[in-house]
Amino acid sequence: MSAHRFLFYAPDAGRGDATVSLTGDEHHHLARVLRVAPGEEVFVTNGDGMIATCRVESVGEACTALAVTATETEAGGVDLTLALALVRKDRFAQALEQCVELGVTRVLPFTADRSQVHRYGEGTMSRLRRIAVSAMKQSFRARLPEVADPVGFEAVVAAATAADCVVVGDREAPHARKPVGGTSVLAVVGPEAGLTTVEIGALVGAGARLASVSRHRLRSETAAAVLVAALAQRD
Amino acid sequence: MSAHRFLFYAPDAGRGDATVSLTGDEHHHLARVLRVAPGEEVFVTNGDGMIATCRVESVGEACTALAVTATETEAGGVDLTLALALVRKDRFAQALEQCVELGVTRVLPFTADRSQVHRYGEGTMSRLRRIAVSAMKQSFRARLPEVADPVGFEAVVAAATAADCVVVGDREAPHARKPVGGTSVLAVVGPEAGLTTVEIGALVGAGARLASVSRHRLRSETAAAVLVAALAQRD
Repeated sequence: MSAHRFLFYAPDAGRGDATVSLTGDEHHHLARVLRVAPGEEVFVTNGDGMIATCRVESVGEACTALAVTATETEAGGVDLTLALALVRKDRFAQALEQCVELGVTRVLPFTADRSQVHRYGEGTMSRLRRIAVSAMKQSFRARLPEVADPVGFEAVVAAATAADCVVVGDREAPHARKPVGGTSVLAVVGPEAGLTTVEIGALVGAGARLASVSRHRLRSETAAAVLVAALAQRD
Repeated sequence: MSAHRFLFYAPDAGRGDATVSLTGDEHHHLARVLRVAPGEEVFVTNGDGMIATCRVESVGEACTALAVTATETEAGGVDLTLALALVRKDRFAQALEQCVELGVTRVLPFTADRSQVHRYGEGTMSRLRRIAVSAMKQSFRARLPEVADPVGFEAVVAAATAADCVVVGDREAPHARKPVGGTSVLAVVGPEAGLTTVEIGALVGAGARLASVSRHRLRSETAAAVLVAALAQRD
């Protein structure tokens, strides 16, 4: 049997704590879904770089008590923001899940001229943030990516101006297997119908480079995953 | 407005035909979903490398008639088979869709020792093949990837022996941004819980190299998409 290591999320866990309590969803996940028993080893992250190795002390009705046996800090990767145009909610959720696994730091949903969806409500945003937590745990990452509230296109241009390096996924651009990176990278992926030439012009004016990740037409969420995979990892 | 080019699938379309008829699902997609009108330009592939540029002549109740104005042949890419362990059906469908967009030639579902799902029925296989057609059309590819019936692990080892190059997505292997390719490449991605050491040993014995596509733990479908993106394209 594979030694599957289970990671749980406790945002209030501190670096010097000798014990950690899991309540709510995290307790439920440990006790009811995974049926972890006292004595077993699990891991806890605060979503801010710390991972604690813990021994399960007790599993109660509403709370799991853990004893911390060691802590470590995950090395930070590239500071990578993905600006992804609003697409169908299930498609956005899929892209978010994959991009969290692949190492994105922040996801910035935005309304593009050709977005077919123009608004995500509070329920959708809550659901997307739960997906980010779940993908962080699944991929054993110690940093919870921020899922920002949706913004207009001008905020993407402002983010492009502030970033060291901006890469726009555009299928008509030359193919770049490894778009050049930087310390603070913004990746921009448009809606299904693409960004308009006006939008691309504004990003290029703000310092963006265009890069294609495939010779073929990709759906937005596939383009986002491949672009994040290429940009998130240091060689 | 983006000039979105619509591609339809007509497996019987020949290279010398002056006209093509769409019936069934393809007719429905053109006439009822996309509401394409006579006089408009659309594209048709036979799924075997040919793409025909067509003018819509008439849209009837059960059939669309197209006049072929030009044909071209899509250059073949890497002959890339993805052997992907049986995972939850919706997850497999997602991986298939992305891998078709990204240029896979053939998908070989297989039962691994740690597969949580051991069987896909005929209905599932039909659905997966429809997804392959739809992803081919979406990504404007002219070659329909084969979706093979599920096989046992020994058939994956046999495929590994026959291929020029075999790459196994394994997160404990050294990270390879560009796993070395070949003319005929087999990529193997295990189930959520990973391939066993016995399975990996059998593949290495058949000539496989191990490659990791991320420092982190990826779900099978994310690993498949990133591995196919890295292997499918010629530089």
